[in-house]
Amino acid sequence: MSIAIQQNSFSTRGKRSLGQPIGTLMAAAIRYPNLVSLAAGFVDNASLPCEAVTDCVKNVLADSARLRKTLQYDSAAGNAQLRESLADWSYRDYPAAKPSIDRIIVGAGSNQLLHLIADTMFDQGDIVLAAAPTYFVYMGTLRAMGVRVVGVKADEDGMCMESLQSELERLAAKGEAHRVKAIYSVTDFDNPSGSTLSLERREELLEIARNWRASHSPVLIVSDNAYQHLRYTGESLPPLLSLADDAAEFVIELGTFSKSFAPGIRVGWGVFPESIVDYLLGVKSSIDFGSPHFGQAIMDEVIRSGAWEAHQPGLLATYRTKLAATLNALDAEASTLPGVTWRKPEGGLYVWLNLPEQMDASETGDLWKAATEEGVLYVPGHHCFPSEGQPILRNTIRLSFGVLGPDKLADGVQRLARAIRAVSRIS
Amino acid sequence: MSIAIQQNSFSTRGKRSLGQPIGTLMAAAIRYPNLVSLAAGFVDNASLPCEAVTDCVKNVLADSARLRKTLQYDSAAGNAQLRESLADWSYRDYPAAKPSIDRIIVGAGSNQLLHLIADTMFDQGDIVLAAAPTYFVYMGTLRAMGVRVVGVKADEDGMCMESLQSELERLAAKGEAHRVKAIYSVTDFDNPSGSTLSLERREELLEIARNWRASHSPVLIVSDNAYQHLRYTGESLPPLLSLADDAAEFVIELGTFSKSFAPGIRVGWGVFPESIVDYLLGVKSSIDFGSPHFGQAIMDEVIRSGAWEAHQPGLLATYRTKLAATLNALDAEASTLPGVTWRKPEGGLYVWLNLPEQMDASETGDLWKAATEEGVLYVPGHHCFPSEGQPILRNTIRLSFGVLGPDKLADGVQRLARAIRAVSRIS
Repeated sequence: MSIAIQQNSFSTRGKRSLGQPIGTLMAAAIRYPNLVSLAAGFVDNASLPCEAVTDCVKNVLADSARLRKTLQYDSAAGNAQLRESLADWSYRDYPAAKPSIDRIIVGAGSNQLLHLIADTMFDQGDIVLAAAPTYFVYMGTLRAMGVRVVGVKADEDGMCMESLQSELERLAAKGEAHRVKAIYSVTDFDNPSGSTLSLERREELLEIARNWRASHSPVLIVSDNAYQHLRYTGESLPPLLSLADDAAEFVIELGTFSKSFAPGIRVGWGVFPESIVDYLLGVKSSIDFGSPHFGQAIMDEVIRSGAWEAHQPGLLATYRTKLAATLNALDAEASTLPGVTWRKPEGGLYVWLNLPEQMDASETGDLWKAATEEGVLYVPGHHCFPSEGQPILRNTIRLSFGVLGPDKLADGVQRLARAIRAVSRIS
Repeated sequence: MSIAIQQNSFSTRGKRSLGQPIGTLMAAAIRYPNLVSLAAGFVDNASLPCEAVTDCVKNVLADSARLRKTLQYDSAAGNAQLRESLADWSYRDYPAAKPSIDRIIVGAGSNQLLHLIADTMFDQGDIVLAAAPTYFVYMGTLRAMGVRVVGVKADEDGMCMESLQSELERLAAKGEAHRVKAIYSVTDFDNPSGSTLSLERREELLEIARNWRASHSPVLIVSDNAYQHLRYTGESLPPLLSLADDAAEFVIELGTFSKSFAPGIRVGWGVFPESIVDYLLGVKSSIDFGSPHFGQAIMDEVIRSGAWEAHQPGLLATYRTKLAATLNALDAEASTLPGVTWRKPEGGLYVWLNLPEQMDASETGDLWKAATEEGVLYVPGHHCFPSEGQPILRNTIRLSFGVLGPDKLADGVQRLARAIRAVSRIS
């Protein structure tokens, strides 16, 4: 009789990584394939840039030296030509923030870089502060590594700086200041809340981090700018690295082409403080010797050919219509529901809903059951709350409008509203 | 005054990952750009399959549904169509071992899967047994995670099973049996030693693991088959999974297209015991949601179109000539050097050299200095030895014949022989 693989065959991290919400949500999507899904985090399928990619790929293929280079090993930081292009392109509206290519590392999507930062910088017991709610996949990654995520209050203008300050003071008072490693912010059109950090708060965030570094520990700001380019109304706000000369010493900004171009190409990038690049590359070298080259060559061509810019108007129009359809349906269906409110984002892919206080939107609550019966899936909001700092609000929901068309979105919201009404009557 | 980023800003893993040998070797390559490098682990540049890739990419582009799918998110395990192709193709000569696609996970190169296995299965203090010498990049990864690598004696036929058995018994006697998690084997044309595990030892390896699992802990065999297809003489040996019905329960086999086709495409795959797949995917989901798609689509097309098969004869002929040039140069230059011996591999990319016992080939020894003065770089063998189990032999060298042409290889060996002669005279 052989000893079977068992729980303790796995690492602590392996055990903690099993059964992440993303897994149960994907299982639900498979279990209920006919449901209208307001849960999926995919992007709009019809607007994927098939033609632009075809043209760019053909240009890569036509240059035999470039193609050959693409097929060979490259550096852990990524293709130098792409990093040049990113240095020129990513802060083109903020020339003072233009990074040297030595500060840029390319990843297979920015999520891989979020993971790399955690792997390289955070130990078990270290602390990362983040908005409550925040991006649940990263929170799962951090928890699997034993990193504590401390929640900070957040509203329509993103993370509240008073709350950040008071959470930091609370940690300092408990003697835990040295464990504070980073402040994580989805700065534009947050996943899941849709909020954008206001300019005033951006300045305050830098100041708080600067002060903390002067007196406590070398905290980093990790600004996840995944949704930066998906703005449908209003004016762009300057990225953190453009707001202060010293920001380059302690701000990491992460970008990706997954939302604004095509997720399957899997190219993201990070701009890092010079002082931590060697460590990050040390870890990245042991993982994959650098991210896949073909996608890097394609994105370099996409940037330099102007194909990215050309793709934006159509993409933004598509999502603008979808967001409007979602908000209009909510106005029509949910504005009369007592205790139901939602934020009106100016961009991104998500709408955040608050339900009556006593309503439990989790997979074990009445609403989930009613919603699946009505034929609609959503992401229960409680997955997005850190376990410390702020209360976990089970009466919250993340709606995604990335995948479905306007009619389906309206249909989904109708179904959800019916489910909320049904549960309100019960409770 | 701000507190600067400092050593303790990093995780334990981040600190341990800095200054891996691969980094110092790359730095040496940059510092001495005109040196003949017998160190680089790159593949032959001229034989990279530019035309085959061009044809296959065009086929992917021509199928718009397929292209669109390639640009969207996919599953953490990788593209289902590629996994079908891999299931059909990878054990085509050993039909009984054909895995279900549920046991296959695609990675950005097989190295990413080696890392994933470590992340998912091994904790600080766990033990992996490996040949002495073994693949130094993976050893660095394991050490960075705090995993102990215990060396097993190895010769021309790979890991010695008596030594494996006695190391296991030694660990059991010390009460450390429960920490033994895996036996790592580069089964064909080992990096760095060039050895191939004999058929008899493959059977024994399975038996030792089977017995250990029955009495101690659910040890895994991790068979890294990166060089499997690079055989220049002799007959192929069956992979471990084909040798016993129960092997599927405890053997992981990893494959890659980096050596037999093109490293830049970055597609590797693993065949895993069913019982651990969900855990691996839990961790992989938090890293990158699955590896980049374009490379996966290309490799699927490469396999199904027969382009991989068509590429092999030319590739093998190229490397066969290079290996012969290296061995001939060693015969001509080094056979008269006292105490210098080398293995004659039947495939792969490496030749392993033993030097006189007192000769230190490390970067701090006389030979390294003499070799750089003569204008040649190599990988000091001591990097490839585990720190436990077997002695660390500093009088060893790994020579790579993947990159240079036959003449340059002969030139490099001549220079190295001169350096060895020079140092022999001193000592």
